[in-house]
Amino acid sequence: MSITEVNGHATEATTLEVKDSPFLQALVQQIRVNDPYGTFRNWSDDLLLKPFVVSRAKKREISVEGEVDPITKGRILAFFRAVATRIEQETGQMSQVVVDLSHEGFGWALVFSGRLLLVSRTLRDAQRYGFDSLEKLAAEGEKLTQSGVDMATRYPEVCKL
Amino acid sequence: MSITEVNGHATEATTLEVKDSPFLQALVQQIRVNDPYGTFRNWSDDLLLKPFVVSRAKKREISVEGEVDPITKGRILAFFRAVATRIEQETGQMSQVVVDLSHEGFGWALVFSGRLLLVSRTLRDAQRYGFDSLEKLAAEGEKLTQSGVDMATRYPEVCKL
Repeated sequence: MSITEVNGHATEATTLEVKDSPFLQALVQQIRVNDPYGTFRNWSDDLLLKPFVVSRAKKREISVEGEVDPITKGRILAFFRAVATRIEQETGQMSQVVVDLSHEGFGWALVFSGRLLLVSRTLRDAQRYGFDSLEKLAAEGEKLTQSGVDMATRYPEVCKL
Repeated sequence: MSITEVNGHATEATTLEVKDSPFLQALVQQIRVNDPYGTFRNWSDDLLLKPFVVSRAKKREISVEGEVDPITKGRILAFFRAVATRIEQETGQMSQVVVDLSHEGFGWALVFSGRLLLVSRTLRDAQRYGFDSLEKLAAEGEKLTQSGVDMATRYPEVCKL
């Protein structure tokens, strides 16, 4: 299934396939392991990643008043857990993920190993969490992975504390 | 006001005074700065710290089913913010505090500066958060402060990232 068909309306044409991006593969895996009732068993990878792509117009429609929707929060957690998985694949360092959001959609996403923060991101307007395209999603995931790998390589002794 | 009078029933006799513990002073300060309506203005320091002391018998009475009470969560946050304040007083390193609790009372409390975790604690049964006595509260706060100061002194360059 191509991404264009998913919601029955045209989206930005994309040439990136999930199988070409190790980060998108890790993200799909995160979603599938958190699927205890097998809801997504017959869904394509593209369909699973679809909610991570949110256009600017769509973002404007989402209110930033009040709590972050638990589904959106789950999506943020899946993203950073996928980054953690990718860093582990590259460096062998196991890590923990913590996402802390206030009721107003502000907060922190942290990936840490021992006493070292591999990834440290502030979040705002988390209600509108999403990326312009699948390419941007993959690029952001790979970028954070790379900076995490760099940190783990530079301070391996802090990871072991 | 002595701690024994506070709830009208006898508690373990205590000789520690808030003014003798830099950690307890920092904790009292945390509570007072988060008091926008001046509710605690006329409360003694001892009275403000009273809810941090929870006897074993009392803990057993608190259910660990369901969400952590927002007031308890605020108390955990105040504790770790006081640790962060004390570390800053000793080292000059500014830090951030994140407390992430699941709905079942499990989670993490983190104090970090730059990319270094100064304090990293797992929490469980957070619904029952509290200490046996004011002395134990002060001792735990000082111990975490000291280990945070050690970390900041050992890896100052990671704090600056």
